Amino acid sequence: MNGSTVNLAAKHALFDEAWSPKRVGTINDMDVKIVKLRGDFVWHSHETEDEMFFVTDGVLRMEFRDRVETVRAGELIIVPAGVEHRPVTETDEVRIVLIEKAGVVNTGDAVASELTRQTIETI
Amino acid sequence: MNGSTVNLAAKHALFDEAWSPKRVGTINDMDVKIVKLRGDFVWHSHETEDEMFFVTDGVLRMEFRDRVETVRAGELIIVPAGVEHRPVTETDEVRIVLIEKAGVVNTGDAVASELTRQTIETI
Repeated sequence: MNGSTVNLAAKHALFDEAWSPKRVGTINDMDVKIVKLRGDFVWHSHETEDEMFFVTDGVLRMEFRDRVETVRAGELIIVPAGVEHRPVTETDEVRIVLIEKAGVVNTGDAVASELTRQTIETI
Repeated sequence: MNGSTVNLAAKHALFDEAWSPKRVGTINDMDVKIVKLRGDFVWHSHETEDEMFFVTDGVLRMEFRDRVETVRAGELIIVPAGVEHRPVTETDEVRIVLIEKAGVVNTGDAVASELTRQTIETI
């Protein structure tokens, strides 16, 4: 993992499930994850953790309660801690690199659902 | 900055200097920086900080004392804390997203030189 080159396309070929982050590295206390997104996620926030979404393929719409940000391949957005957001895909699939503190649960303060991932697999 | 979409190509158009990281966001205590690389950097290490290099353009050769890793666009490498490394470009220019703890000095434990950047501008 750390210390070796990580090819994102090769890592994405290892799984198909949407909304299921996979760890590909760590930067001190931060996890570096890749995720496939398809459709609408749930509204949620993370009380103390900022969250970086770097889009590598597709078009992401990041909804906030008062506005929307469009994030295309080659663009990133950092959702500040405590801010409600909902990721929605504008293309069939969006692929992202997601960086945030280790231990963050993807659905944040939302009621746990079939989208919730408590543990993250390293690939 | 945080909360808004960051287009990396647009940010790169704001400066030309090589080996001079520019901050485009923060994830809690981590800086998210973009850097243009040209030529050979200096051998150095960072005592306690891991450092992620995500290549968005070009081909980077990450030299370690015992081996070399090639990192192409769409690939990343995390250099573990304490490990000596030297980034070298295999293409005329390499563009990266660099993520590491805020306050890390680019030349690490190497003697300060004209390559050293003690402070980082936000763009």
